[in-house]
Amino acid sequence: MNNLRVVLVAPRNPLNIGAAARAMSNFGCSHLRLVNPYKVAFREARSAVGAGKLLAAAKEYPGVREAVADCPLVVGTTAVRHRELQHPLRRLEVGARLIKRKLASTHVALLFGPEKTGLSNEDLSHCHWLMHIPTRPAHISMNLGQAVAVCLYELARDAKVKPERSTAQPAVSSALDRISDSLFDALQISGYIKPKLTASAELKVSRMVRRLHLTAEDAETLLGMLRQIRWKLHSEGGQKT
Amino acid sequence: MNNLRVVLVAPRNPLNIGAAARAMSNFGCSHLRLVNPYKVAFREARSAVGAGKLLAAAKEYPGVREAVADCPLVVGTTAVRHRELQHPLRRLEVGARLIKRKLASTHVALLFGPEKTGLSNEDLSHCHWLMHIPTRPAHISMNLGQAVAVCLYELARDAKVKPERSTAQPAVSSALDRISDSLFDALQISGYIKPKLTASAELKVSRMVRRLHLTAEDAETLLGMLRQIRWKLHSEGGQKT
Repeated sequence: MNNLRVVLVAPRNPLNIGAAARAMSNFGCSHLRLVNPYKVAFREARSAVGAGKLLAAAKEYPGVREAVADCPLVVGTTAVRHRELQHPLRRLEVGARLIKRKLASTHVALLFGPEKTGLSNEDLSHCHWLMHIPTRPAHISMNLGQAVAVCLYELARDAKVKPERSTAQPAVSSALDRISDSLFDALQISGYIKPKLTASAELKVSRMVRRLHLTAEDAETLLGMLRQIRWKLHSEGGQKT
Repeated sequence: MNNLRVVLVAPRNPLNIGAAARAMSNFGCSHLRLVNPYKVAFREARSAVGAGKLLAAAKEYPGVREAVADCPLVVGTTAVRHRELQHPLRRLEVGARLIKRKLASTHVALLFGPEKTGLSNEDLSHCHWLMHIPTRPAHISMNLGQAVAVCLYELARDAKVKPERSTAQPAVSSALDRISDSLFDALQISGYIKPKLTASAELKVSRMVRRLHLTAEDAETLLGMLRQIRWKLHSEGGQKT
């Protein structure tokens, strides 16, 4: 991520500049470049609470040409899918793969256009290819800060991350049996189980307990709860008779 | 996405509520629920320009319990990695896979906590498990609107999308030869190529032209450019002698 240069072209809104910087910090990318930003916006963004080093170190350029001069790969982002695009256009999932491969050895500039209009044809002429976030056709245009966050997330995400194994031990069968027996006993005392249906009810309880996917620890807890309930039920029963 | 319920718990900032709604619209998710939002913020967000139907249809609930009542799976988002977490915690890449599978058949609630504090332990007690965005350890906490955008993007992204084949035809070898010959001729006339090195220069030019990955169309254009340059060079040469 240290080889990535995030380039905001003519941003107008200080909140968006701040949001872009925050997302960059979240995803470990520290080089922000601004092309001809609205001066007041840049000043406000820099003086915002918690703006931090990233914005202080952000560099300003008069044009896209100067901002990407040291980058062998320049990728523009666009919401538009077909304005007689003269460039190859890739979905973020695909484009990010290519960018990641490049980032391993060299700088890459990722361009974001102004809030209202996006990148101009002149801006795009400095790009090798374009990338779009797969938004809904009826609402393609994303907020600038959110678009930066989504692109950086895609670059930072790890496709190979494995589902973590639960550290919790599952309850062993004998523990489930003790719970089934306890619950069955409590249900009998409380009158939930009709005497005629005792046998089928016992199997039902046993199956249900097995569907709970109890951990060893939760099985212990549940057994303690049932023990107390049964004690109370038995003593209530004792009082009544 | 139509089965997803985005639940913002006690949001304070109208811009964040609006940003969450915008990201939802971008990624085709229309059911927004707010738990005990700051009243002024909710009103402002609703009256913002371009807020649209999604915010108008957003529902308000007094507590998390009520907001997730109809959801068989409730997932909380958290930036924290280890506050003696009592829940399984999954990275977004992994958690989103599980959520997608569920969304095929049933509602899923995705909870986002208040800006300053995140979800409380009480909020978390309604969750089946938790999910975190893989941010940098030194800066884990994301802006609310950006966090919503990143989570919805991960749910909307298509891991199977293939790199699109370029529709542009690559230039055939004979076109590249014509370019090499033309360029070589121009270089000879202009005096770029030393007479002694003619043979090796010809091969150099040919190899370079092949490294350009020209499309058929660009090859035509380039040939036209070279033709004109050569014509001018020959006529200049003619004038001088």
